Amino acid sequence: KKPIIRPGTGILERLDGGEVVIGDGSFLITLEKRGYVKAGLWTPEAVVEHPDAGRSSFITIIYLVILTTVLQQFAFYYSNSYFEYVEEAVWAVEVLKESGKPVAATMCIGPAGDMHGVPPGECAVRLVKAGASIVGVNCRFGPGTSLKTVELMKEGLGATGLKTHLMVQSLGFHTPDCGKGGFVDLPEYPFGLEPRAATRWDIQKYAREAYNLGVRYIGGCCGFEPYHIRAIAEELAPERGFLPLASEKHGSWGSGLNMHTKPWIRARARREYWENLLPASGRPFCPSLSKPDV
Amino acid sequence: KKPIIRPGTGILERLDGGEVVIGDGSFLITLEKRGYVKAGLWTPEAVVEHPDAGRSSFITIIYLVILTTVLQQFAFYYSNSYFEYVEEAVWAVEVLKESGKPVAATMCIGPAGDMHGVPPGECAVRLVKAGASIVGVNCRFGPGTSLKTVELMKEGLGATGLKTHLMVQSLGFHTPDCGKGGFVDLPEYPFGLEPRAATRWDIQKYAREAYNLGVRYIGGCCGFEPYHIRAIAEELAPERGFLPLASEKHGSWGSGLNMHTKPWIRARARREYWENLLPASGRPFCPSLSKPDV
Amino acid sequence: KKPIIRPGTGILERLDGGEVVIGDGSFLITLEKRGYVKAGLWTPEAVVEHPDAGRSSFITIIYLVILTTVLQQFAFYYSNSYFEYVEEAVWAVEVLKESGKPVAATMCIGPAGDMHGVPPGECAVRLVKAGASIVGVNCRFGPGTSLKTVELMKEGLGATGLKTHLMVQSLGFHTPDCGKGGFVDLPEYPFGLEPRAATRWDIQKYAREAYNLGVRYIGGCCGFEPYHIRAIAEELAPERGFLPLASEKHGSWGSGLNMHTKPWIRARARREYWENLLPASGRPFCPSLSKPDV
Amino acid sequence: KKPIIRPGTGILERLDGGEVVIGDGSFLITLEKRGYVKAGLWTPEAVVEHPDAGRSSFITIIYLVILTTVLQQFAFYYSNSYFEYVEEAVWAVEVLKESGKPVAATMCIGPAGDMHGVPPGECAVRLVKAGASIVGVNCRFGPGTSLKTVELMKEGLGATGLKTHLMVQSLGFHTPDCGKGGFVDLPEYPFGLEPRAATRWDIQKYAREAYNLGVRYIGGCCGFEPYHIRAIAEELAPERGFLPLASEKHGSWGSGLNMHTKPWIRARARREYWENLLPASGRPFCPSLSKPDV
Repeated sequence: KKPIIRPGTGILERLDGGEVVIGDGSFLITLEKRGYVKAGLWTPEAVVEHPDAGRSSFITIIYLVILTTVLQQFAFYYSNSYFEYVEEAVWAVEVLKESGKPVAATMCIGPAGDMHGVPPGECAVRLVKAGASIVGVNCRFGPGTSLKTVELMKEGLGATGLKTHLMVQSLGFHTPDCGKGGFVDLPEYPFGLEPRAATRWDIQKYAREAYNLGVRYIGGCCGFEPYHIRAIAEELAPERGFLPLASEKHGSWGSGLNMHTKPWIRARARREYWENLLPASGRPFCPSLSKPDV
Repeated sequence: KKPIIRPGTGILERLDGGEVVIGDGSFLITLEKRGYVKAGLWTPEAVVEHPDAGRSSFITIIYLVILTTVLQQFAFYYSNSYFEYVEEAVWAVEVLKESGKPVAATMCIGPAGDMHGVPPGECAVRLVKAGASIVGVNCRFGPGTSLKTVELMKEGLGATGLKTHLMVQSLGFHTPDCGKGGFVDLPEYPFGLEPRAATRWDIQKYAREAYNLGVRYIGGCCGFEPYHIRAIAEELAPERGFLPLASEKHGSWGSGLNMHTKPWIRARARREYWENLLPASGRPFCPSLSKPDV
Repeated sequence: KKPIIRPGTGILERLDGGEVVIGDGSFLITLEKRGYVKAGLWTPEAVVEHPDAGRSSFITIIYLVILTTVLQQFAFYYSNSYFEYVEEAVWAVEVLKESGKPVAATMCIGPAGDMHGVPPGECAVRLVKAGASIVGVNCRFGPGTSLKTVELMKEGLGATGLKTHLMVQSLGFHTPDCGKGGFVDLPEYPFGLEPRAATRWDIQKYAREAYNLGVRYIGGCCGFEPYHIRAIAEELAPERGFLPLASEKHGSWGSGLNMHTKPWIRARARREYWENLLPASGRPFCPSLSKPDV
Repeated sequence: KKPIIRPGTGILERLDGGEVVIGDGSFLITLEKRGYVKAGLWTPEAVVEHPDAGRSSFITIIYLVILTTVLQQFAFYYSNSYFEYVEEAVWAVEVLKESGKPVAATMCIGPAGDMHGVPPGECAVRLVKAGASIVGVNCRFGPGTSLKTVELMKEGLGATGLKTHLMVQSLGFHTPDCGKGGFVDLPEYPFGLEPRAATRWDIQKYAREAYNLGVRYIGGCCGFEPYHIRAIAEELAPERGFLPLASEKHGSWGSGLNMHTKPWIRARARREYWENLLPASGRPFCPSLSKPDV
């Protein structure tokens, strides 16, 4: 089965056709670490000041996912200010729907609902009724919490008989200890999140679980580096019918290690090894969970 | 005090003049995550295949440290094959010294010595006797272990009355659980090291301790991203007399957060907060240390 | 205010009079470690084989809590087989009520309800309607989970306008990772639970939170050693009006350390120190949570 | 092979005859938790005030190890004040040796030596030269550190050609993070040590490693409960030729669980299960190691 790139094909057309759409990853958190963006309000001035840097980042990611990436439509603060508040999100979806474009409504909520107390299932129902063609969550929570939230959205929709495409774009950080506000309320945000960073294997597991849940638009948000996006494409290669071009530089399940000179490192070139690894933090004086500030 | 850039000034001239020289960071580990390099033998094919990518990476880092960066002279496997074996390292230093160039001899060893059992103090003595002008460690071990090793080198030199410039280029990963072979023998190497990644604050502490130990050539190796190198330059700004240009995009000690809309996040915009933070791994099912394979 | 011992006063009379009743602690788990009982079905053969050992244990505990201890009425397997199943528990309460005795119905359930899916609030309502004068939880879950369960029971009762006395007898082990079946399904049960053992300070916090929740019958179960029961009595000494006699051998908040020869150990003789301590496991190769077997 | 009880047989006679002698466990730390002793100077007033309690504790332990227990000769503070200081320890051994009694000299030191800087190997040599028939360590450090120290003692003796019986009586707490002063300098001492408590399986491993190192007098100190002592006797049953009587109440390697009603708990009734278990702390907000106060 050959890669189906089909430039110009729209996202809804792809999803309706049964294609697995792979989203993009982190922009601001990643660019901050590369020195282009100042943390705080995270204004994306880098795009203006360093168009090459922005483009390079875009290009990298697009290259990795072979032109099937769908970039989110809204600048962060625009979407954020709307989508934390359900009623306004519904309004925004209605306005956009009138424009005739397909609409993906993503929300920054966890299983316990957003800060206004609307549970995920009801959020999803309201958005679909307002016209959203794709519903899901983006940012604020790690893989486990995000998948749980989409599961609750699916259950909410199922209970009303509504159907829609599902989407998930989790953080690339593990945040089982989050409160309702998500990772920004964790004491490590934003300059001490390193120990929470997902491995590529964590993301393969996330992609598989998302797929099994029925999600067909799978991507990431803050903390997702290019190799995490590639991991989604590799995990779902059997379903999509092709490996991403970027896998030219990545042996699946560490197979590139089988030419290492040390036998105990060669022994790591297999799926079971990485699937079962429980990676240590190297920080015995630190806890494994934190209490959110609120 | 203005930045003293002085292009064309050599490394020894700088060190002899009391300047703090800042080294570079990770290449292969970083480029692998960006999709340019295949893990295994880590052959730097990216430089040939994607000269722009390599250059962009170089440029980023050089930009951050304002032209005072000294790039290591040897390709990885060259230096590695020599410098793991003390006698050959001594021979290499002698050969290079004859060429009239200043020589920096770095070794991949920890406090317990290399795999041939020569302790750090004696390694340093042999290298200086052979003509090395700068002696230190690079790669294989995290900040704590690397600093301890340089301390032992300094003690070994002190006991013989020899003097030299000291250098340290630690991993950007915490590896207190390493054996003699360093991080490659940890079960997480190379695809599960994420939870061990240093924060910028870890690196400021590392830079300060290195400076206090008398080290004046301070950089990083695998796992050091641009923002880690910037952290060295920020920590040592009082001694160097200037902030790096890259600090334009980084408020020291998180000061950029003081414009955040949430008061509890604004409260993180201060030095004591980040200095005392014990960052959680978000992985309660994982240990904090691992047993090396050998 | 003098200790109100009043032998012969019944438990309901005490609770109705506003007294805080302190329950007992671990029997079988404790006696197993002392060598009197064989783990497995935990048959209480020790009482037959070593009456002095049993009595000594009883005496110790009763001594500690100054005759206010209320011993549970049922042998473990009797209560267990009934109270895991709500309908049978309701039946048992009805039978006992007819006998004219006050009835305390405790259940082995967590916040997610028992294995038959009846949530805690409804369990409490059914039991009170059947005639239970005291309702609460015992065994199977640690302090945090047990308190959360009683809170849900209280909410369930509150919603129906029913009132009753509340009781809590948590494990002396921390089990935030339990599933519905409680600690027996954790991989550490029963021979690797040591790292989960509560400190006396954990139990003081538990006693305070139970009291604030309105619970007036506060004790422990497996893992509660005599000093844990004493900790309840010490925490609630202001409310009860007296310290337990056993506090003769215990300076509150570690005050006994203020005569230690080392100043840094004397510095530990204060409340803030022990309240804020985050005790390390000394096991960096172990995780902090486990996945239950079911 | 029948149990060789032989009351009246002295410790040296036993060791010279190739018997494995099993020491006793915790007294004061254990009695404090049972309510008999006040923490601080740990004066053993319980023996005077509650002779039955003391006797019961003695009896329990002696019962467990079938009369082969050797009780230490010195009250804690006596031995402590002497044995922290090598020269005085040597003097004490000489005095006692003149009395015609066999002498066991145990010290509270770790691998880095005592607070006077005398390394373990040299301590052992001085004590043997002064007449000690048995040399080892007691208290202050956990199993791993204590065994490492005895190993260094053995190496020191081996280098001089001296021979003696070796002894080890570790803490029943894991303390890999201790400094030279041992566990009293850890922030958890003495009221927050619970998460560090050894399991019976940890102690079987300790007993095996001690035996393999050539130690034939193996016991415990603070934190060793009766079941830990029994674990030593069970691990070394093949060498000693008999199980302790106390094993009547303990199926080796959890075999008593094979009659449990739940199949997943029955599945724990085997050696591999408990040998490989990495027990969780249940405390995800706590670290795994602490920094000693000095």
